[in-house]
Formats: sequence, C-alpha cells, structure tokens
Amino acid sequence: MQDMVKVAVDAMGGDNAPFEIVKGAVEAVNSRKDIKVFLVGKEASIREEIRKYTFDAGQIEIIPAKEVISTEEPPVMAIRGKKESSIVIGMNLVKNKAADAFVSAGSSGAILVGGQLIVGRIKGVERPPLAPLIPTKNGVSLLVDCGANVDARPSHLLQFAKMGSIYMENVVGIKKPRVAIVNIGAEEEKGNLLVKETFPLLKNCQDINFIGSIEAREIPNGGADVIVCEAFVGNVILKLYEGLGSTLIGKIKEGMMSSLRSKIGALLVKPALKATLKTFDASQYGGAPLLGLNGLVVKTHGNAKANEIKNSIIQCVTFKEQQINEKIRQNIILKDE
Amino acid sequence: MQDMVKVAVDAMGGDNAPFEIVKGAVEAVNSRKDIKVFLVGKEASIREEIRKYTFDAGQIEIIPAKEVISTEEPPVMAIRGKKESSIVIGMNLVKNKAADAFVSAGSSGAILVGGQLIVGRIKGVERPPLAPLIPTKNGVSLLVDCGANVDARPSHLLQFAKMGSIYMENVVGIKKPRVAIVNIGAEEEKGNLLVKETFPLLKNCQDINFIGSIEAREIPNGGADVIVCEAFVGNVILKLYEGLGSTLIGKIKEGMMSSLRSKIGALLVKPALKATLKTFDASQYGGAPLLGLNGLVVKTHGNAKANEIKNSIIQCVTFKEQQINEKIRQNIILKDE
Repeated sequence: MQDMVKVAVDAMGGDNAPFEIVKGAVEAVNSRKDIKVFLVGKEASIREEIRKYTFDAGQIEIIPAKEVISTEEPPVMAIRGKKESSIVIGMNLVKNKAADAFVSAGSSGAILVGGQLIVGRIKGVERPPLAPLIPTKNGVSLLVDCGANVDARPSHLLQFAKMGSIYMENVVGIKKPRVAIVNIGAEEEKGNLLVKETFPLLKNCQDINFIGSIEAREIPNGGADVIVCEAFVGNVILKLYEGLGSTLIGKIKEGMMSSLRSKIGALLVKPALKATLKTFDASQYGGAPLLGLNGLVVKTHGNAKANEIKNSIIQCVTFKEQQINEKIRQNIILKDE
Repeated sequence: MQDMVKVAVDAMGGDNAPFEIVKGAVEAVNSRKDIKVFLVGKEASIREEIRKYTFDAGQIEIIPAKEVISTEEPPVMAIRGKKESSIVIGMNLVKNKAADAFVSAGSSGAILVGGQLIVGRIKGVERPPLAPLIPTKNGVSLLVDCGANVDARPSHLLQFAKMGSIYMENVVGIKKPRVAIVNIGAEEEKGNLLVKETFPLLKNCQDINFIGSIEAREIPNGGADVIVCEAFVGNVILKLYEGLGSTLIGKIKEGMMSSLRSKIGALLVKPALKATLKTFDASQYGGAPLLGLNGLVVKTHGNAKANEIKNSIIQCVTFKEQQINEKIRQNIILKDE
C-alpha cells in the first residue's frame, strides 16, 4: 500500500457528476494496481453509482462531503464558506498528505482559489498557473498560464516557463522542451508591454530552452512545446481551440450530409477520420495541472466524461513518480533566492 | 466618371505581388463598371503583368512608385524614409482625395503607421483599429481591434465598438449588430483590469447593442456580430483562427488518404466538403479595414491571391456608398464632444 498513488477525486464536480466521475475512477483503478482513489462527495449518490461496477475494494474509498460548490458561486466565498464541500474536503486531503493529488471537473474559480488557499504554494512560487496540454499537428504543447492569474507580471511568466519546462520534460517526456512566448509578431521588438519586459528574462534564463516569440498561427502547428502567456490570452487560446475545433468538425459533418454522394463517401471516410480527429481531442490528455502547489491539483473540463477522468487520475501517477514538485522546488528556490 | 469609386492598390505588396495583385485589380474592374483602380508600384513590372489581360483602359491607371517597403523594415522609419514607396504614394493619393481608398497586402506595420501619419484620423477618433471579418458557423463577425494598437485603454475599446457597429450595420448589412467584449467568463465581474473598466462603458453606451461578455469558445459559433478586444488578444484570435483551421483541414485530408477505403470516400465527399469549407475561408470577405481614418485603408492577408484583392477592392465601393466615415464622424464627434 505504501507505493500507491493516492488521488482524491471530486465526485460532485462537472456536468456529468457523479455518473461519469465514478465510472472514470473505476476505470482508472481497474487499469492500474498502484492507484488508490478517494471519491469525495455525497455518500448516497456515490454508492448508487459505484455498485454498478466491479473493482478491487481496496482501491476505492468514499469520503463523504455534504456540500457542493456550484460554478455560479463566487470562488473565494465558496471556498471559505463551504467547509463540507467536495472541493474543500478533497483539497484538505492533499494538504494533510492523506492524498497526493486532487482531481475535479468542478468550478474553475473555486479550484484555483482552493489550490492557493488550502493546498498552498511551493515556497518561492509567486503564482501557480493552470497548464493544460493542447493538441497540435504531431503531438501536444503545454499552454501556461491558462486562467489562474490575470494581469500577470514578467516574473510570473518566467516562473511559468520554468515550471512548464519541468512538466513537459518529466511528465510528457520531451527532452529540452522548446519554450516560446505568445506574441503578435516573430521579431523581438514586437509585442505589448508585458511581452517586451518578459522577453529578456526568458532569453537570459539558463534553465529553459527559449526559442523566442510564437505567433498564434504556429501553435496548432506545434511551433513550441511550452507556450508561455498571461492567463487572459491563454484562456482565449484554449477556448478558441475548443470552439473552433467543434465548429469546423460540425461544418464538415454538415457538408458530408448534404448529398447522397457525399453521404456514401462519409461512410467510407468515417473510420479514418475518427482516428485522425481523436488525436486532436483534448480529453485524451487528461486535465490541466495547477503547477507550483504543495501537492497536485488537476482541473478537468467541466463536461469531462469517464475517459478524461481516468486519464487525469493516471496522469497523477507520473506527476508523483517524476517528483515534479521537488524539481520545481529546487529550481525555483535554488535559482531565485 | 464622377460616380466612380477610386481605389489605389499597392501592386508591390504581399507574397504574390505583382502577379496576383494585378490579376485581382483586373477582375475587380471587369466585374463592375463603377470602379477605377490606380495600380501603384514599379511601372515595368506592372506593365508586364497587365498586358496579359483585357479590360477597359479607362478603369486602370498605373501610378509609378520606385520603392518597396518590405515586411522586415521598422514601420515608422520606412514610412518616413521611403517617400517613393508604393505604400506612401498610395496613401498620399487617399490623403489628397485623388483616391477614395487604398488596398495593400504589404507590411502590416507600415500600413498601420502610414494610415495614421499620412491618411490621418477622423477628428475625435483616438485610435484607428484594424477590423477584419472572421468566418463563423453561419456568417461573419467583425473582430476589432486586431493588431493596430497594443495596450489600449477603455475609451479606445468603446470607440472600436461604435465604429465596428457602424461597419457591420452598413457594410455587412446586419441590423442592430450584437456587440460583445472578449472575456474569460460570461459573468460581469470576470476579466482583467481593461475588460472590467471597459464593460460599464459599453453597457451604458446608447449607440450600440451591447450583449455583454463573449468567451472565445463562442466566437466561431457566431455568438456576436462585433467582437471587441484589445489588439494583442485580437491578433491572437485572428492568427489562431487561421492556424487551427489549416492544421485541422490538413489533418482531415491526411486521415482521408490513410487507406484505400477512405481515399474512395474522399473522392465522393470532396465537392460537398469544398463548398462547406469555402464558407470558412477568410479571403472570401476581402481585407480588413482600418476604421476611423480620413479615407479608407484596407489591409489584405500577406498571401492574398487575386480573389481576395478583387473582393477587397469591391468592398471599398460599399464603404464609400454607405458613407461609413461620415457616420463615424457624426457618431464620434456628436456623442463625445
């Protein structure tokens, strides 16, 4: 039991809770023996779902939580006020070292606030960024920051670059990941004030493989492994990725259904197309970690299904095995203090 | 001749100059009798291209310009130093009222700087934004600002919203266009400092149909007609649109070529797919106007082909007929002074 990675999972978070969450947790423990999941939430609802499945009873434990934080609630007030919520109880498990990680599809705001207030930052980390993997032409890139901190400063972005590099190298397995800053032109003198001030910090940092600016056009092309930007821009990139992808695919399906000829063609291309588009499906890569906390917090999509929950739980194993937080701690403290 | 719309076209700008530019100009005058084009650039090169075509000689005139501003040159220095360049000469035609509009696929920076320094702003306009139309699920939206001014202030964004509304209503023909501000959440309290300060200005403005925040996810879905944001964010949205579109379409083509079965299917779906994807092709809608200048300046894509040049020239006719600048002048001066 000692070597197990213990993951607290918010059974009440997201659009498909508790059904898909419980299903994903079961799939995770059935795929790996070294995972223990704490399902946090309303006991009766979880029990009703969980009895549908077969699994090693030692690998899943229910932790009752009476309250649920909804996405409409102001985050700070919700975290402070709802001590019995699945998010607060799950995060306290991480804080008290009863769990290594917390996975939730619930309120982004509450998860970001709870991460800072309950789990706490690694000493020296100024702001913990939300860092999702986004699909590219031939792989994935890490987008950091993506919603945790608006109006960031250059020193924050430098830390995002360092933490992002450690994550990509150790969790995703990209050696010397290429780091770039999102900009509106490739030249060094371009950009807004924040980018202009951050650029030299990144350029002079010895710990990262900085390749300069990246224009948004090159992101889907895989132009960099770690894409640094402030949260507002990162959030726009992430959401537009999702929106444009689904609109385009919808258009294509519509086009294929427009005539008998194309309908027959659609039947023939369907399997190949499905496989191709699967590589562009963000849920394949699990949720987004909040980097720089004293423990791991992973935010999945609000509409996450079992597969994304399962992948997010499994992702926690690599995060622990690779000692990401120890590496961040060493990198940030040794270099900056 | 009095009723003709006179458009100066930069024959030397963009990746495909002068070939595609001249071709686009010829197609424009051949499609409408009320357009006169001044092709500005190196006379010998233009003559060599233009003799390939048949057109009414009264509709195209060559204006010699010895110099060319490249995309690598620092914009302010280029505009000030290269008085004989196609951009400076073309813009002077607009300034001196010899032309109603100037269309260029050349250096964005030089076009933006030249627009302000040579053509000049309408009195009361603080900053002239670049406002491209972007394709959405069922139509187009205007993205304003998209690269002209980084680090904008709330009062600038309010003017962008007003000018964008006038453009969408009168050029694109959308009655009471829905105006939204790009934000990272739908709630009023969300956003960075700029958005929070701009939101009440938009909300209290009687001249526009403000519908609140728009998340980037909803942009491709056609969630608003006029999408207001500062230039850095707008540029990221525009470039990501282009990059993600072409990456996804490339992936789909690759998927379709992966087996014999899917290759046959691809042949059958091709015509329907082509028609569908055409509606998502930004070049259909011509270039992006710089709003709020004493004359019209249109920036097309650097890789614009004849069709985009042609559409951009034709767009100038509607702009003039609808007296957009008079409407902007009235709206900005009467309301703000």
